[in-house]
Amino acid sequence: MLQFQCDYIQGCTPEILKRLSDTNNDQFPGYLADDICASAVKKIQKAVGIPDADVWFMIGGTPTNQLVIDSMLQPYEGVVSVTTGHVNVHESGAIESTGHKVITLPAHDGKMCADELRELMKRFYADETFEHQVFPGMVYISHPTEYGTLYSKAELEALAAVCHEYSLPLYVDGARLAYGLASRHTDVTLEELARIVDVFYIGGTKCGSLFGEAIVFTKNNTPSRFFTRRKQHGGLLAKGWLLGIQFDELFTDGLYLRLGKNAIDMAEYMKEGIAAKGYPFLLDSPTNQQFPVMTNEKLKELEGKVLYSTWEPVDETHTAVRFATSWATTKEQVDQLLALL
Amino acid sequence: MLQFQCDYIQGCTPEILKRLSDTNNDQFPGYLADDICASAVKKIQKAVGIPDADVWFMIGGTPTNQLVIDSMLQPYEGVVSVTTGHVNVHESGAIESTGHKVITLPAHDGKMCADELRELMKRFYADETFEHQVFPGMVYISHPTEYGTLYSKAELEALAAVCHEYSLPLYVDGARLAYGLASRHTDVTLEELARIVDVFYIGGTKCGSLFGEAIVFTKNNTPSRFFTRRKQHGGLLAKGWLLGIQFDELFTDGLYLRLGKNAIDMAEYMKEGIAAKGYPFLLDSPTNQQFPVMTNEKLKELEGKVLYSTWEPVDETHTAVRFATSWATTKEQVDQLLALL
Amino acid sequence: MLQFQCDYIQGCTPEILKRLSDTNNDQFPGYLADDICASAVKKIQKAVGIPDADVWFMIGGTPTNQLVIDSMLQPYEGVVSVTTGHVNVHESGAIESTGHKVITLPAHDGKMCADELRELMKRFYADETFEHQVFPGMVYISHPTEYGTLYSKAELEALAAVCHEYSLPLYVDGARLAYGLASRHTDVTLEELARIVDVFYIGGTKCGSLFGEAIVFTKNNTPSRFFTRRKQHGGLLAKGWLLGIQFDELFTDGLYLRLGKNAIDMAEYMKEGIAAKGYPFLLDSPTNQQFPVMTNEKLKELEGKVLYSTWEPVDETHTAVRFATSWATTKEQVDQLLALL
Amino acid sequence: MLQFQCDYIQGCTPEILKRLSDTNNDQFPGYLADDICASAVKKIQKAVGIPDADVWFMIGGTPTNQLVIDSMLQPYEGVVSVTTGHVNVHESGAIESTGHKVITLPAHDGKMCADELRELMKRFYADETFEHQVFPGMVYISHPTEYGTLYSKAELEALAAVCHEYSLPLYVDGARLAYGLASRHTDVTLEELARIVDVFYIGGTKCGSLFGEAIVFTKNNTPSRFFTRRKQHGGLLAKGWLLGIQFDELFTDGLYLRLGKNAIDMAEYMKEGIAAKGYPFLLDSPTNQQFPVMTNEKLKELEGKVLYSTWEPVDETHTAVRFATSWATTKEQVDQLLALL
Repeated sequence: MLQFQCDYIQGCTPEILKRLSDTNNDQFPGYLADDICASAVKKIQKAVGIPDADVWFMIGGTPTNQLVIDSMLQPYEGVVSVTTGHVNVHESGAIESTGHKVITLPAHDGKMCADELRELMKRFYADETFEHQVFPGMVYISHPTEYGTLYSKAELEALAAVCHEYSLPLYVDGARLAYGLASRHTDVTLEELARIVDVFYIGGTKCGSLFGEAIVFTKNNTPSRFFTRRKQHGGLLAKGWLLGIQFDELFTDGLYLRLGKNAIDMAEYMKEGIAAKGYPFLLDSPTNQQFPVMTNEKLKELEGKVLYSTWEPVDETHTAVRFATSWATTKEQVDQLLALL
Repeated sequence: MLQFQCDYIQGCTPEILKRLSDTNNDQFPGYLADDICASAVKKIQKAVGIPDADVWFMIGGTPTNQLVIDSMLQPYEGVVSVTTGHVNVHESGAIESTGHKVITLPAHDGKMCADELRELMKRFYADETFEHQVFPGMVYISHPTEYGTLYSKAELEALAAVCHEYSLPLYVDGARLAYGLASRHTDVTLEELARIVDVFYIGGTKCGSLFGEAIVFTKNNTPSRFFTRRKQHGGLLAKGWLLGIQFDELFTDGLYLRLGKNAIDMAEYMKEGIAAKGYPFLLDSPTNQQFPVMTNEKLKELEGKVLYSTWEPVDETHTAVRFATSWATTKEQVDQLLALL
Repeated sequence: MLQFQCDYIQGCTPEILKRLSDTNNDQFPGYLADDICASAVKKIQKAVGIPDADVWFMIGGTPTNQLVIDSMLQPYEGVVSVTTGHVNVHESGAIESTGHKVITLPAHDGKMCADELRELMKRFYADETFEHQVFPGMVYISHPTEYGTLYSKAELEALAAVCHEYSLPLYVDGARLAYGLASRHTDVTLEELARIVDVFYIGGTKCGSLFGEAIVFTKNNTPSRFFTRRKQHGGLLAKGWLLGIQFDELFTDGLYLRLGKNAIDMAEYMKEGIAAKGYPFLLDSPTNQQFPVMTNEKLKELEGKVLYSTWEPVDETHTAVRFATSWATTKEQVDQLLALL
Repeated sequence: MLQFQCDYIQGCTPEILKRLSDTNNDQFPGYLADDICASAVKKIQKAVGIPDADVWFMIGGTPTNQLVIDSMLQPYEGVVSVTTGHVNVHESGAIESTGHKVITLPAHDGKMCADELRELMKRFYADETFEHQVFPGMVYISHPTEYGTLYSKAELEALAAVCHEYSLPLYVDGARLAYGLASRHTDVTLEELARIVDVFYIGGTKCGSLFGEAIVFTKNNTPSRFFTRRKQHGGLLAKGWLLGIQFDELFTDGLYLRLGKNAIDMAEYMKEGIAAKGYPFLLDSPTNQQFPVMTNEKLKELEGKVLYSTWEPVDETHTAVRFATSWATTKEQVDQLLALL
C-alpha cells in the first residue's frame, strides 16, 4: 500500500538513529540538563541568527501549542487564530482546556490577513462592552499553514506590525517549517522568521526526527519559570537527551533544510504529474502538502492502493484530498502514485 | 437623564422589598436550606408543570451559564451556541475558563437554526479526524435572544429533536424569560418550554428581582453533587433565603408574568412611537429590547439626554441602537423618550 | 428554637434595609459604575487610611478567595495556608478548581506561625528538585481565624516580613473582620492591618450586611484587568449598587465597628456564663465564636432547643461545639441559651 | 563520574534499539493505530492475565498520572495520596492544574495505610459540612513507592476493600513496576496486581525503554472518549508505533522482568556492600532505590566522584541519600561505588 496520507509515517533520518545507537551506553543527567541538549541549543541559536534565543525542547505539536499559548496569555486573554488553524480545529480543545478562548478570523487559503487582524483589534477596543469580553492576547499562525501555504516576508511583517501595535506576541507554529524554508516560492528564511516573530517552534516530528519540537523565544520574552510550566503541562521528558539528539543532528551540516528539500522536490514532481493528468487543485500549495480535486469515483478506485487524507467535499461528485510528501519520500513512490492516477 | 440602556437599572418589585423587610428579624438556616427557598421551589415546580423539576437558585446570569454548562459537559466536550450568544461574546471567557470550547453556528436574528445544527453534527461524525476535535456536547440558546427575538414552539421542538438524536442536552438561557413569555407574538408558554428543553433558567435579575436566577432541570437530569459544584463555582449564597424571597414573590399570583407584561406593553408602545417617527429597525423584535436605526447625527443630539446601548454600525452614517424597557418602565418615561426622537 | 450555629442567620442591619427602600425607585448604571459604589469606596479608603487603596466589591467569601488567589498567583504557584484554613477545607476545592495547590502549614489554634513559614520557604529553595514542585506564591490567613483567634500586630508583622523576604503577597480573609477589630483583646486596627498586609477583604455577609465582601488592594498591586477577571469568575453583580449600599452604610458613622462590638459584647457575656457553668473551652477565643466542650449527653439534651455547630470530638464522651454571636444577637437570646446549659 | 542518582540515566535495552533500526524504513499509520501497538497491547493483556484489559500508551509518568486522575475524577473530587506521593510533591502541580485537590494521608515509609484511609472516608461522610468539601474520589498509590518500598498482597487487598466500599477507584503508579515485581521480598505478581486494582500503569521510562508508560484499565472502566482526553492532555504521540515498539519488546520473552531482576541483583549487592561498611539506612528498601545515611563530611568527599540524590537531612551532621540501580547497572559500577564509600 502506498502511503501519502501525511508526513509522519516513518521513523527518522539515519543520522539520528545512528546517534541513538552511539550514545545508548552513555549516561546522562535527566530533564534536558545534558550536553547534547546544550549543543543542540547552540546550533539552533546559530541557525536562527540570535545568539541569546531561548530554546526549549518538547515532544509533540499539540502540547507545544498548549504550553506556549497558555504560558504567554493572561487568564482573561484568548489567542487569535484563523478558523482553520490547528489550535482551533484539531487539538481536541487543548487550548480551551487551559482556560483560553480561540478567537477566530477568516482563513484565506489557511492564512491570516493583517488588515482583518487590525480591524478585529480596533473593533474590540471600540466596543463599549470590551471589558465583558475575552481580550485578544496573542496571535497564532502556522507556516506552512494547514493548507500548505506560506506567508511572504511582507505578510509576516504586516502581521507583526499589528501585533506590536497592540502588544500581542506573534507566535508561529512551525510543525512543517522545514518544508516552508525549503519551498521554491518563499522569501522567508529561518533568520528572517526569527527576527520578525516573537516565538515560534521548529518542527521535528514531521520533518525527519522521531519526535520533538524546538520552541524558540526570540526576544528575551520567555515566560517566568518555564521549566516548571513545561513540567506541569506534562511536557518534560525524563531522558531529555533524546530530544537533544534529534535537534543536534537536524541542525548539523544543514540537514534540516536538506530534509525539507527532499520533500519539496518530491512534492513539485508529484504536483506536476498530477496536473499533467488534468486534475485541478483546491489551491496552489508551494510546500509538501498537495490538494488535488478528484471525482469520488476515482477515489473509490484508489481504495486499498494508496492512503491519503480526505480534505473537504468540493461538490456532490468531487472531493479535495491531500497527498503529502516528506523528508523520506522517494521518486519511486511518487512514480507509483502517479501511475495509479 | 432618561435611562433605556438596559433592563437592570432599578431595584426590585415592591413585593420583594416588603418581604425583605418583613423577614429581616427572622432567623434562617444558611445555604438555601430554609423554608422560603422550599416554598419558592414548589411554586416554580407548579408553574413549569413538572412536580419533580429540580430547581436551584443562583445570583446572576454569567455564573449560572458557567455552572450549568461546565456541569453538563464532559471535559472533552464543548457547547454549541450561535455566534451572538451571550456565552460566546459577553461573559469574559467564563465558559472557556472552565475548559470548554464554545462551538459556533451562524445567528439568524440571534437564533439558532435546527437544520444547521443537524448539519454540524452530521459533518462532525463524518469527519475522519473527529476524535481529534472538541465534541459538541450540549446546545445553548437564549429565549428571548440577545436580539430580543423568540423561538416559536415549532422551532424549539425542531432543535430539541436534533439534540435528542445526538444526545445533546438543550439548555435555554432565560435571563429575560418574563419578556418572552409575555410577548404578544409567542406560542411558547413556561410549561411548553419546560416540557421541550432539558434545562433552562428563569431570569430574575432582569425581570423584577434584586438578583437571582432559577435553574430548572426538567428531566431528572441534574448533574451529580450539584450543591458542591455550585459552591466550587462560587455560586452558593450564604444567606440563601434572600434568593428564596425573590422567587417566592415572583411566583406568587402570577407576578412574574405581570412584570413581563408591563415591559412588553411599554416596548410595543415605544416601538410604535419610534416607527411613527420614521425610524427603521435593525430587526423586528417582539420583546422588551428594540433596535431602531438612527443617524449618527441624531444620536449625538441625544447625548446627555437619554442613555441607550450602541448596538452595531449599519453604515457610515447610521447606527443601530438598543432601547430596553423593563418591568419598571412607565408610560411617562416612554413619552419623554419619544419626545426626544 | 434558639440559633447560635453561625453568624449569617439574619438579614441585615436596619440602615441597609432603609437605604434599599429609599433607592428602590432610582435608576443606576449597572456593574458597579454607580455613585453609591463610588461613595462606599471612598469611605473604605478613608477607614483603612490609604487614599489610593483599590477597593472591589464581591458578593460572598468563597468566590472572593477564589478570585483574589487565582488572580495573584502564577499558574505554577500555590497558596500557603494552615491546614484549618477556609480555602483548604471548606470551599469545595474552589482554589484547586482554578489550578492552584493549597500548600499547608500546621495550624496553631487556627493561626500560621511566621517561623514555620520561613522554614517552609527555606526548605523549598534548598531542595534540589524545587523546579519540579509547586512554588509557594502567596500566603493566606484569616483574621479572625476559623477558630475565632486573632493575630497580634507583632505576629502579622512577622508574617509580612517573611512574605516580603520571599516576594509573597500576604492576603487576609476578613470574613469576620468586624469581630476581630472589635475584640477586647487585639492591638490590630483596620489601619494597621491595611498598612501591614498586601490585600485583604472586609467581610459584610457575616458582619451585618445582606451579603458582600470588599477586597482592598493596599499597595497599588491590583492584578491587571481585574474587572474582567471578576466577571470571568462569575463575581460581577449586574445591579452593582446593591453592593455599594451595603458598604456605604457599614462605613457610615462607624457602623461596622459598632456591629462588631455588639457581637463581642454578647460573646464575652456568653463566654462568662458558659464558663461559670463549669464548661471548659477548646481554646480561648477573643471573638464572636466560642468553642465550649460538652458531654455528648448534654448535647443530646440540647437537641431541638438550640442550633449550634459540631466542631470536633474531644474524646469518646465529649465534643467541642461552636456557639456564634453576631451583630444581631440580643442579651435575651444569650440568657435563653445560658438557661439551657 | 559514577552515576547512581536515578534510574533514567541511560537509553534503552538493546532489543528496543534494534527494533527501531529494523523498522526505520517501514511506514505506519499515525496515532497508535499501527500493528506494533496492537501486538504490544495483546502481550500486555496476556501478561496481566486479563484478555480484555484496556491498554493505552503514554510517553512519561507525570502526564500519565495527570491524564488518569483527571479522567477518573468528577470535577468536585480529589485524589487521595500519601504526603510523599509523586503526585503530591514532584509534579509541579500537574494534578491541581486540572482542577483536583490532592487529599493527603500520612506516609509510612512511603505507603498508605488502609485503616487510615477508611478513617478518612468515615470522618468525611460523618462531617455535617461534607458537601462544602472536596470529595475523595479515587486513591493513588505507587508500587514501588517513592521510598522503594512495596505493598504486600494483603496490604493491597485491604486498600482495595476500602476503595470498593466507598466506590473509589484504586490507581497504582507503576513507574518502577519492574523493580517491584522482581524484588526478592514481594508476593505481588503482575497478575495479582491487575486483579486487585482498578487501573495502573506499567513503567517503561525507568525500566529499560527509551520512554513510555502503559496504562492498564482492568475492569472495563476506561473513561469515555479516552483517545480524545489523551490528545487534549497533550499525550498523543504522532508516531505512536514508537511507543508500541518499547512495550512490544519489553513484553517479549519476559524481558521486562529480566531487566527488573538486574536492577534488584545490583541493588541487593550494593546494599550488602554499603551495610558492610557500617552505614545505616533510612529504611529497609526491597527494590532498586537504597537510602543509606551518611555523614555530611563523607558526602563532601564523594563530590565529583559519584552522582546521587540528596534525600533528606537526618540530623545536623547526617543526611540520607539515594543510590539507585537500574536495568543497566553493572557489577563493575557497583564495585567502583563501594570502593569510594
